[in-house]
Amino acid sequence: MKAVRYKKPYTVAVEDVPEPKIEQPLDAVVRITTTNICGSDLHMYEGRTSVEENKILGHENMGIVEEVGPAVNRIKVGDRVSVPFNIACGTCRNCVDGWTSFCLRTNPTEGMDGGAYGYANMGPYDGGQAEFLRVPYADFNLLELPPGTDHERDFTMLSDIFPTGYHGCELAGIGPGHTVAVFGAGPVGLMAAHSAFLRGAARVFVVDKEPDRLKLAESIGAEAIDFSRGDPVEQITEANGGPVDRGVEAVGYQAHDPTGEEHPEMVLDNLVKVVRTTGAIGVVGVYMPQDPGAANELAKDGRVAFDYGTFFTKGQRMGTGQCPVMRYNRELRDLIIAGRAKPSFIVSHELDLADAAAGYDNFDKRVDGWTKVLLHP
Amino acid sequence: MKAVRYKKPYTVAVEDVPEPKIEQPLDAVVRITTTNICGSDLHMYEGRTSVEENKILGHENMGIVEEVGPAVNRIKVGDRVSVPFNIACGTCRNCVDGWTSFCLRTNPTEGMDGGAYGYANMGPYDGGQAEFLRVPYADFNLLELPPGTDHERDFTMLSDIFPTGYHGCELAGIGPGHTVAVFGAGPVGLMAAHSAFLRGAARVFVVDKEPDRLKLAESIGAEAIDFSRGDPVEQITEANGGPVDRGVEAVGYQAHDPTGEEHPEMVLDNLVKVVRTTGAIGVVGVYMPQDPGAANELAKDGRVAFDYGTFFTKGQRMGTGQCPVMRYNRELRDLIIAGRAKPSFIVSHELDLADAAAGYDNFDKRVDGWTKVLLHP
Amino acid sequence: MKAVRYKKPYTVAVEDVPEPKIEQPLDAVVRITTTNICGSDLHMYEGRTSVEENKILGHENMGIVEEVGPAVNRIKVGDRVSVPFNIACGTCRNCVDGWTSFCLRTNPTEGMDGGAYGYANMGPYDGGQAEFLRVPYADFNLLELPPGTDHERDFTMLSDIFPTGYHGCELAGIGPGHTVAVFGAGPVGLMAAHSAFLRGAARVFVVDKEPDRLKLAESIGAEAIDFSRGDPVEQITEANGGPVDRGVEAVGYQAHDPTGEEHPEMVLDNLVKVVRTTGAIGVVGVYMPQDPGAANELAKDGRVAFDYGTFFTKGQRMGTGQCPVMRYNRELRDLIIAGRAKPSFIVSHELDLADAAAGYDNFDKRVDGWTKVLLHP
Amino acid sequence: MKAVRYKKPYTVAVEDVPEPKIEQPLDAVVRITTTNICGSDLHMYEGRTSVEENKILGHENMGIVEEVGPAVNRIKVGDRVSVPFNIACGTCRNCVDGWTSFCLRTNPTEGMDGGAYGYANMGPYDGGQAEFLRVPYADFNLLELPPGTDHERDFTMLSDIFPTGYHGCELAGIGPGHTVAVFGAGPVGLMAAHSAFLRGAARVFVVDKEPDRLKLAESIGAEAIDFSRGDPVEQITEANGGPVDRGVEAVGYQAHDPTGEEHPEMVLDNLVKVVRTTGAIGVVGVYMPQDPGAANELAKDGRVAFDYGTFFTKGQRMGTGQCPVMRYNRELRDLIIAGRAKPSFIVSHELDLADAAAGYDNFDKRVDGWTKVLLHP
Repeated sequence: MKAVRYKKPYTVAVEDVPEPKIEQPLDAVVRITTTNICGSDLHMYEGRTSVEENKILGHENMGIVEEVGPAVNRIKVGDRVSVPFNIACGTCRNCVDGWTSFCLRTNPTEGMDGGAYGYANMGPYDGGQAEFLRVPYADFNLLELPPGTDHERDFTMLSDIFPTGYHGCELAGIGPGHTVAVFGAGPVGLMAAHSAFLRGAARVFVVDKEPDRLKLAESIGAEAIDFSRGDPVEQITEANGGPVDRGVEAVGYQAHDPTGEEHPEMVLDNLVKVVRTTGAIGVVGVYMPQDPGAANELAKDGRVAFDYGTFFTKGQRMGTGQCPVMRYNRELRDLIIAGRAKPSFIVSHELDLADAAAGYDNFDKRVDGWTKVLLHP
Repeated sequence: MKAVRYKKPYTVAVEDVPEPKIEQPLDAVVRITTTNICGSDLHMYEGRTSVEENKILGHENMGIVEEVGPAVNRIKVGDRVSVPFNIACGTCRNCVDGWTSFCLRTNPTEGMDGGAYGYANMGPYDGGQAEFLRVPYADFNLLELPPGTDHERDFTMLSDIFPTGYHGCELAGIGPGHTVAVFGAGPVGLMAAHSAFLRGAARVFVVDKEPDRLKLAESIGAEAIDFSRGDPVEQITEANGGPVDRGVEAVGYQAHDPTGEEHPEMVLDNLVKVVRTTGAIGVVGVYMPQDPGAANELAKDGRVAFDYGTFFTKGQRMGTGQCPVMRYNRELRDLIIAGRAKPSFIVSHELDLADAAAGYDNFDKRVDGWTKVLLHP
Repeated sequence: MKAVRYKKPYTVAVEDVPEPKIEQPLDAVVRITTTNICGSDLHMYEGRTSVEENKILGHENMGIVEEVGPAVNRIKVGDRVSVPFNIACGTCRNCVDGWTSFCLRTNPTEGMDGGAYGYANMGPYDGGQAEFLRVPYADFNLLELPPGTDHERDFTMLSDIFPTGYHGCELAGIGPGHTVAVFGAGPVGLMAAHSAFLRGAARVFVVDKEPDRLKLAESIGAEAIDFSRGDPVEQITEANGGPVDRGVEAVGYQAHDPTGEEHPEMVLDNLVKVVRTTGAIGVVGVYMPQDPGAANELAKDGRVAFDYGTFFTKGQRMGTGQCPVMRYNRELRDLIIAGRAKPSFIVSHELDLADAAAGYDNFDKRVDGWTKVLLHP
Repeated sequence: MKAVRYKKPYTVAVEDVPEPKIEQPLDAVVRITTTNICGSDLHMYEGRTSVEENKILGHENMGIVEEVGPAVNRIKVGDRVSVPFNIACGTCRNCVDGWTSFCLRTNPTEGMDGGAYGYANMGPYDGGQAEFLRVPYADFNLLELPPGTDHERDFTMLSDIFPTGYHGCELAGIGPGHTVAVFGAGPVGLMAAHSAFLRGAARVFVVDKEPDRLKLAESIGAEAIDFSRGDPVEQITEANGGPVDRGVEAVGYQAHDPTGEEHPEMVLDNLVKVVRTTGAIGVVGVYMPQDPGAANELAKDGRVAFDYGTFFTKGQRMGTGQCPVMRYNRELRDLIIAGRAKPSFIVSHELDLADAAAGYDNFDKRVDGWTKVLLHP
């Protein structure tokens, strides 16, 4: 079959590889109908991870169940399914507690909890930017979707970024009537803004400097804050008449100022400033324990010297980490079906799998208008 | 000043009474700009309570602060305010815990916690269907509103029914993606449906038999269920493809079947049936410990023989009671200001205070189209 | 092998039956080391259920894994395990949400969610009062215990009554500093009292009329209330200086007065009275939708005419239903290992499996001192 | 009257000052019976704050109400009371939400929410290391105690450190069965350990290097970890058989290694390492936005370069800030009365107010055995 493989920094290729097979009795094989390029794929693409050559990429997957192992008894061949990016065993302590993003059994990497498809350090699993994907523990992991092809562009967001944006809101405790600042208007930030409104937020400010992304934020009723035009904390505070109740970090360790220089502490500093005393911050932008390509010595060791004294003095809380997709994807699916959520508003391009390299290149360069790329095998 | 006073069953009168004065150092006097007739006023109006003759009615009040006592230091003369129907001291255990509807100090009635304006058994407080109202513990109780007259018809819902409908959702734990059944499309039920959507519900079914009310439910995106056309549980289950996640009771002890006969257990039975295992039910329709006018001997003693065995077998939860308005009114106000909530959709009539008797009469008779009556002194 | 089988009302027999086998790839077979007689077994024993003749009883089981199916990959032969009484698939919506007591897939009985071993209406599963037990979905359901034989009498409480008592506290929201009333000093009530203290309760009142049970309550620091000596509500209120914060119902539908007459609403009435406004009640005593042997017509249909009007007026909450054991058993196990929990204090008798009939007989008759019976195959 | 006043670094003096008076209608004056020296008083004592000369110190106060203002109607002259260290108005948004430590109205200091007695930057309020203390908003702030002198040494912990230690546990979400690491065995750390057990923790590890403090930790069942004898993370992980569930930071910005050198990030780094994935950390040790006396340039600006990458990768949560005492003091009082909590176990010295200077000196020097000093005017 055809699959997208990582070759070297800034290079992926669509190549012929063997089709996946049922390896364990609880496996399923899914024929992929849509698979997305994720912002976190760019960490690998840019050479900022230790991902091995020829890894099949892709952790935002959906499709039709093609085959199931002999112990699978809930999911059936022919089911249309969303595949959460987390690979979870369903029986360890963390899975049972709902923390499928920190499964204790599926990732053999020393010191890392939580497996994923096609990703550096998250286990020996192929990704789904391919015609077929092997899914371990299929009865536990797969989310059933209505048959047919309706809402394909919305449902494809259920595997990662829609729940991830929602998780940022959950970690920040966003609820009805809250004012919210979301830093980062990439796909995850936009999903966080969409989710904040679904949870009843009164006002949502979204901070970025890319006009196409800020326009998308405005299209769902958020207020765009362009940080290349001045201090975003001042802009938000003035527009809101004071600090906001909650904040979401959707940028991560590669945060940079308007000139492009990286400042890993910049976004956390701004969040601590712009959120009021007793407020909370959800962090879904990725930070890394080791980052050899980082801007300074501290950051190479994953150290981020943000304004902790003010964080403490304001009595704020902060939650972090990868999203346990299964905690949210069923309800988000139902909101899509009911017509109340429409995460496809961020989709800019739908490409053939064969054109994946162009998708990576344009998305990585933030070419204007390339906000979210879907691939169809 | 002019005030609406209870005279006898089915009779209120607008009469001249002395203006209220500052009696305690923490009091304020509010000049009423809008005051509503509440469905629970009808319990008194119909003679189903022990309210005394000449009581000034009215617990849904808003206006402008006219005068404050010497110890008031937060609220200022001239502030536009919403007056929660609960009268709360702000310093007892229940108030400190956020249960202002069960203040331990403001209601001298034996065995009753929680005070209110102009209501049977809830303390010696005059109501606000009048030109002026005395507000105890003003700094604690009053919610400040933006100056001017904007949103008057929305803000007037903040004193009781909007938070009360919202409280039904809170007691039922309604959140994003949930399917919900609301029984009763009176003002509180409609506010519960509106609140369920604000909290992210995917689908909301509203049960009633009055066409004008069901039409209002549909106007906000809810699905109308006319129980005069068949079993509402079957109708909801069929439309929803199964039981719903959560239920709200917004009818109370005078529940009646399509022929008008009272069955106090009917709505609870239906909720237990239509809500799925592990689901929850919020009860904001009023039930009374004593009801001499009830339909049967059990109900006269406040006993409701609903299907408890099924309630237990399904592992359901149930929360009840009057709403602690202060827990929600600030956030709901901010949603109104942001344009995301619009509770005024239920308003059908705005009358001069002088016309209160006609308002009571038409609202009590459920004359078609009389869904919510505002009075302006 | 030998197994305890239900024959007819008031009769069980230890008989030879075929050993269980691996039937599904996720099954395990457990060699039982300890299995308890549960108070809810008595509902069957007394003929108050529709359980079929020759059903192997027993849902409180622990032992050593003897064999595993080909898809089992977490649990290993030789592991010492506790078997939760719930049979849960681990992949349906309720299981994923932590509600293993309401598994949507393991109980084929129409209208019933949740499977169990050896129990009426809870699926075609043999019980564990036997030498061996088949356990479906073993990786999900089984809780691993330290090897050896330490704490056997404590660990055997982890399959049902310790978590069930704890669940009563969870449903009632019991936390540090609370005052608590537990109705019923049978095994579940005593476990609820023990759990209330583990959760930080300041004072726990336990209501019963059996001196041996009340003495056990006192042995863990609870205050015994003998309802045969006067109104338990008055006794508690006087001892506590007012109503309590929280209540637990551990009696169920066969509640009876000191003369032995059944009053299904009696305990709920007392709880509503003795718990303060805004308080909560956890109900783990069993109520049934149909009870042909009940004391009155309402109760035959599962209707319980308790004082709902007061329940509402006091703004109380109530949670009900069977316990999802997996939500609590890991932490309770760790408290046993750390020496901070010791649920074995209720054990009165340890019998050979062969003597099960005598165990049932004495326990059912509430012979003085027969508080909890363990069977060893 | 006599009062303890700050004179200059390492110098306090007991001097004659005017007695406080009722200044506002909601004030009370309390005759102090016991007032403690707090670890955070030492920040001022050591000259690490901007506190002004002659400030009366003391925020851990209890006593008898001597006089009340004309608007006080709940608290009465003669009541024995605990005075929370927070000065809270009771009517602002944060107070109403239960965040009395971040009252928006009582602290006029620019950019700071939350007032306190006798403390740098927390408003113009005299402390209670004196014969009398003025208490604003007395009905809201004061907690009534049983009359008499029983439990004086326990109740005196209710004004700050017992609730503060408990708050650390709340921020970390510590519950039944958890394993916990508390860093710092000063008074707050010991109260956190005591609180963790009250909340049901299975095992609590307490890290310090002072033998007298570690011995106190062991006296309540905690396991002492002496970090001068080796890496505390390794010691805990080995003893516990893996990482712990939750952590509490009770050290603050002056964290130092065994040689006495300050490393502000050291304790946070250790907590991130020793707490498992998905775990939570409560921070009640104080961190400051500005610390001119800090060990490095980052720390002077309140920046703490801890291992944020690992914090994120492990999906941990962190809560911080000063304790809202009123949220916990009532329940903790009731646990003391019931004999289930005994925070006085840390008291080492009771001095006359006149001997305050010696108390400060010995406590600051960590003279062996000086773990907690009470002053009696």
